[in-house]
Amino acid sequence: MLKPGATIGILGGGQLARMMALAAATLGLKCHIYAPAGDNPAFEVAAASTEADFTDEVALKRFAAAVDVVTYEFENVPARTAEVLAAIRPVHPNPRALAVTQDRLIEKTFVRDLGLPVPDFRAIDSLEDLMEGAAAMGGFGVLKTRRFGYDGKGQAMIRPDTSLAEAWEKVGKAASILEALIPFDRECSVIAARAAHGDSVAYDLCENEHRHHILARTTLPASVPLGLSHEAMAIGETIAAALDYVGVIAVELFVAGDRLLVNEIAPRVHNSGHWTIEGAETSQFENHIRAVAGWPLGIARRRARIVMDNLIGDEAERWEALLAEPGAHLHLYGKAESRPGRKMGHVTRLLPENA
Amino acid sequence: MLKPGATIGILGGGQLARMMALAAATLGLKCHIYAPAGDNPAFEVAAASTEADFTDEVALKRFAAAVDVVTYEFENVPARTAEVLAAIRPVHPNPRALAVTQDRLIEKTFVRDLGLPVPDFRAIDSLEDLMEGAAAMGGFGVLKTRRFGYDGKGQAMIRPDTSLAEAWEKVGKAASILEALIPFDRECSVIAARAAHGDSVAYDLCENEHRHHILARTTLPASVPLGLSHEAMAIGETIAAALDYVGVIAVELFVAGDRLLVNEIAPRVHNSGHWTIEGAETSQFENHIRAVAGWPLGIARRRARIVMDNLIGDEAERWEALLAEPGAHLHLYGKAESRPGRKMGHVTRLLPENA
Repeated sequence: MLKPGATIGILGGGQLARMMALAAATLGLKCHIYAPAGDNPAFEVAAASTEADFTDEVALKRFAAAVDVVTYEFENVPARTAEVLAAIRPVHPNPRALAVTQDRLIEKTFVRDLGLPVPDFRAIDSLEDLMEGAAAMGGFGVLKTRRFGYDGKGQAMIRPDTSLAEAWEKVGKAASILEALIPFDRECSVIAARAAHGDSVAYDLCENEHRHHILARTTLPASVPLGLSHEAMAIGETIAAALDYVGVIAVELFVAGDRLLVNEIAPRVHNSGHWTIEGAETSQFENHIRAVAGWPLGIARRRARIVMDNLIGDEAERWEALLAEPGAHLHLYGKAESRPGRKMGHVTRLLPENA
Repeated sequence: MLKPGATIGILGGGQLARMMALAAATLGLKCHIYAPAGDNPAFEVAAASTEADFTDEVALKRFAAAVDVVTYEFENVPARTAEVLAAIRPVHPNPRALAVTQDRLIEKTFVRDLGLPVPDFRAIDSLEDLMEGAAAMGGFGVLKTRRFGYDGKGQAMIRPDTSLAEAWEKVGKAASILEALIPFDRECSVIAARAAHGDSVAYDLCENEHRHHILARTTLPASVPLGLSHEAMAIGETIAAALDYVGVIAVELFVAGDRLLVNEIAPRVHNSGHWTIEGAETSQFENHIRAVAGWPLGIARRRARIVMDNLIGDEAERWEALLAEPGAHLHLYGKAESRPGRKMGHVTRLLPENA
């Protein structure tokens, strides 16, 4: 258990690290951000920062020695980086959670082995595998690289008229996974937090809308039966427990009819949980910091109906109108440059529960 | 009007500056903290910091040139400091607000001239003045230095059996003010915010309990009739308007029977407003930053009944129990050293409105 005044090391310098650092500061903890050169808005709110590559073992060791615990804002932390750090300081969530979630095949297998519902899937290591798999799935599926995909990158839709050779090119002929195409009604996510001693909480189920594979809007409550919402929350806590996880975890789910299917696990705070800053009794960022500090979790109760909109690219230019809108909670991430598809901020609106 | 990415310069490096910087970061603004050497926990959450004395004009000018607007966390900014800065960048609240509130005689006169209720007072420049004044007030009063008093320092109670010579010694024979002793029922405060274009908001009236002249607890709603509460809120906005004020202002008041009396003005965010972080739609820190940035204010609506307790000196050692208490919002200020009387943190509890 850390004491106030201790230092949390965070890998990654983007908005998630920034919001973690703000939560840590409220609790009297220091943050040390480690990130490669670039636009790192988290540096601006941290007690210390290291600008170095994730492969720079000298810098990594110096960083680890300067902090009390290490966490991260993104799942693509190289395994060797986690290993170097974990030899010196506790790393939360643990390197196994990273290993499982960095590989879609391992992740899906892990979830299925827990007895949780996942779309049908199979490993694809060659064009032949893809041809076989696509045929077995009736011509429909989604081909995804096993590793390092995000925001729709490294993916190809498979339909009966798709050129499988082209799809195989599109994923760079990398080790991949073919997932059954789920005719889902909605996309949801559950954010859970698990403390070092094993207690966990889950936030209410979020309903998510994507545009161009990027989260555009999260609303709560999700328009699903309450039983399904509770089932999803239990799935989040089950996965966290199975990974012996410490920190905040996000599980993306498809809702198809009355069925839930696990789509993806993110071993970190999540964009669909940004509403918790104003909308929940304890934010996902505070609960992540509490967990990695070895502290008890805060209450995850939701305060209101929620609409959270991402401000992507030039949408952040609406900042003046949003500031003037009563009850709109504007968050800007302090990024130096706006680019299409870049998350620049978000805005959360709390609505009365019965409006 | 500042643009996101602009830099707010803050004089002072304590917890108020720290909480302002956290609010600014959420809105995509940078902060540059200027404070003399010492324990400056605000440095840890700011994009830049300058450690220099308030009399170091070279450092002040460099600081002013590096920021877009200047604000401060405490009212005892030397007049010359404000003048040097104001020649280069806008200073909010304006130097006149500083000048008025740095001198209890000028402050009380200003409030009385607005037609607002203040305790009887008179200037004391000699032991003779004090003898005359004490007699005129029936032997009871509070002697306070005109300048640089806080948390009960530079004050002496006057009762019929008090040695006036000793009281005069106690305030260092400095230019002082004798105020009538008010047999008040409770101490309250009102936090108001005023934007550059003149709009203002006031938070609900706070009821304050002091121990050893230091704020110990703030509760809302104050146990006063609603009419009195609204009158106090109007007083806050009236004073802000009269000072052509930009930012958050706090007005401390005595409640005696059905009367309000203005005790003191603080031209800054205020300890009795810390509950607004979780308890109001927009915190006092966010509204202060919005105002000094030239932005519109956010809604000041209160969300719940509130109890805010300061953690003073070793009270902050209760952090572990507070973290484990459901619904207790713990704030620790990251101060390196705990000392008796030192504000180390606070805890805010939100209670259902009708509990």
